[in-house]
Amino acid sequence: MELLGSLRKGSGAQTNPIWPFVPYEFEFDYIAESLDPVATLAGPRILPSKTFNQVSNIQYDVILVPGAESRIVADISPTIVSFVKTQNPGLKYLLSVCTGAWIVAKAGVLEGRNATTNKAAFRRIKNETSTNINWIPKARWMVDGNIWTSSGVSAGGDMAHAFMEHLVGDNFTTVTRNIVEWRAAEQGDDPFAEAWGLV
Amino acid sequence: MELLGSLRKGSGAQTNPIWPFVPYEFEFDYIAESLDPVATLAGPRILPSKTFNQVSNIQYDVILVPGAESRIVADISPTIVSFVKTQNPGLKYLLSVCTGAWIVAKAGVLEGRNATTNKAAFRRIKNETSTNINWIPKARWMVDGNIWTSSGVSAGGDMAHAFMEHLVGDNFTTVTRNIVEWRAAEQGDDPFAEAWGLV
Repeated sequence: MELLGSLRKGSGAQTNPIWPFVPYEFEFDYIAESLDPVATLAGPRILPSKTFNQVSNIQYDVILVPGAESRIVADISPTIVSFVKTQNPGLKYLLSVCTGAWIVAKAGVLEGRNATTNKAAFRRIKNETSTNINWIPKARWMVDGNIWTSSGVSAGGDMAHAFMEHLVGDNFTTVTRNIVEWRAAEQGDDPFAEAWGLV
Repeated sequence: MELLGSLRKGSGAQTNPIWPFVPYEFEFDYIAESLDPVATLAGPRILPSKTFNQVSNIQYDVILVPGAESRIVADISPTIVSFVKTQNPGLKYLLSVCTGAWIVAKAGVLEGRNATTNKAAFRRIKNETSTNINWIPKARWMVDGNIWTSSGVSAGGDMAHAFMEHLVGDNFTTVTRNIVEWRAAEQGDDPFAEAWGLV
């Protein structure tokens, strides 16, 4: 998010002359079932900006589906799965981070696709989702059509970096990477598939 | 934070048998001037858990001073600087991420120390802080006594990884790193000092 946040309307990237101009101006929503603060796995509580109810008539261009601990995603609310399913046909891009790919799989969106997910939860997710999904064990992230899936949490930054380069090119992305000091990985630079015995 | 969050009281690391036992149980506070939501540079609004006023009689073991855009840190509130100054003598560890080192420098805590900070803001911070601080340009993070300073945002993860290893050893840290898929950098693996012409 610290990478993609540079594409936000009103961000430093639009006012600081060290960034090249980009023809994008993102507005972000953080959507949850209610506006109550969300307790995170590690970090402060965060505030949703809208509820799923409030956006039922909105078609987003891009959605990013985050993950959570396996036991939480195993019992994920049908509201979230249904949101992904409803948004998908009109999306320009669908991104997932970590076990978020499990939610996307539950929404039926990964049928016949290449995808990846958190390596610690890889076997369980592969076993509990459609056999028609081609789960790739060794990858920081996968792209299949307009669907981008990334591996465990930190791999989300590498996917965000590659996604930004895809959207706005290398000039802007290099400045952003150098400011947040992101050591961007190549797509196959994934030691964790091996660490979890998946390759 | 996703790394250090595994040391939190009640976190998965205490209940999931894949993690080795550690004799630590952290409780985190997120301290701000008021309990109002904090707008972040890139991401949702976050909720402080306590105000500086509420913790004026508390001595923490560890504080982590985050950064912000240069223009914000240049005008940083005296309350924050004073909090760092007051906490410092009783701290076991003081950590900073990104331009957070600028705040720590303003509190007088880095006199005679080695420290590092965000490379995009490095020259400005070096010029506007005490000449008695030994700012190190090429480093993901620096350790001097009980003071740990890291470079721009993403380098904070590498410092957190090294700090966890220092606290609880390699067994626990390896499990945590493999779950969040953190590609941990060596301390000197810093391409950004060069990118900003600092070495």
